[in-house]
Amino acid sequence: MRVTVLRLGHRVFRDKRLTTHVALTARALGADEVVLSGEKDDGILESILDICERWGGHFKVSYEKNWKGFLERKKREGCELIHLTMYGLQHQTQISEIRKSKKDKVIIVGSEKVPTEVYHLADYNLSVTSQPHSEVAALAVFLHDFFEGKELEKEFEKPKVKVVPKACGKDVRKEA
Amino acid sequence: MRVTVLRLGHRVFRDKRLTTHVALTARALGADEVVLSGEKDDGILESILDICERWGGHFKVSYEKNWKGFLERKKREGCELIHLTMYGLQHQTQISEIRKSKKDKVIIVGSEKVPTEVYHLADYNLSVTSQPHSEVAALAVFLHDFFEGKELEKEFEKPKVKVVPKACGKDVRKEA
Repeated sequence: MRVTVLRLGHRVFRDKRLTTHVALTARALGADEVVLSGEKDDGILESILDICERWGGHFKVSYEKNWKGFLERKKREGCELIHLTMYGLQHQTQISEIRKSKKDKVIIVGSEKVPTEVYHLADYNLSVTSQPHSEVAALAVFLHDFFEGKELEKEFEKPKVKVVPKACGKDVRKEA
Repeated sequence: MRVTVLRLGHRVFRDKRLTTHVALTARALGADEVVLSGEKDDGILESILDICERWGGHFKVSYEKNWKGFLERKKREGCELIHLTMYGLQHQTQISEIRKSKKDKVIIVGSEKVPTEVYHLADYNLSVTSQPHSEVAALAVFLHDFFEGKELEKEFEKPKVKVVPKACGKDVRKEA
């Protein structure tokens, strides 16, 4: 099953770091791909790709101008669309149903204002708490619960560098 | 048991949104307090406090210039210091031990460069995956695992507004 994260409404100036955090969180916590939408930003695509190349694995990064067309196509292809929003149903009440379905997933995370159409296109509108916080945190908790913690053991193939976990200090190895 | 999050190395210009996300994630996922360090930024304190007042609860927000003195004092008071870093031991191997101890906790999250002293002062240096991603995501997953999901049911006292979870659309109620 393939898990794609769609980041809506990226703004080059305001969102550079948050969008980078969304993308890297998606990668680290087991998603296969991130698709950025909103303002086109080649710098950010490049810097995420650089990190992926250095740290290994097969994570895909791309830009999609027409997010609506993208979601409609994914839906036609049989994907389940999951929109993370503080206004949605509590994710913990829906996650086991979502886990059971073997369909590919697109997890949608917004920026400031999310168009109403997203709520209607989504198969699920889900909240990680109904409090205001962070799309990065919501994505992290959702992926962690969806993969049931197994994503923490994921190995990233052919990295150039690798961290060896350590009680104090840093141990970063260059891989052959 | 009291859980405080210390955000190290805030920079007014670069980190405004990420530090806000750290603080709101701490609040939403069950911490009692956030302490900001780095550059002093009254704007951010005020905007976080505004959100807390609107959405309820007793979350505390403050600024501490001398993070080292703060951590040393907390240690003398018997707190456990937990530093989240991609170089640390895997958090999932330590979390049940940490959960068992009833000591107050200070969870430390850095910005770009974390001073070496933090690694030495901390009782635990813990990673949420050994991959580069986001301090917001690491904090979210750590708190979620620490509180075992019970934080998702937390009620925030005397809110002015409240979201009623909904399958599609938004239902935000003004509280009396």
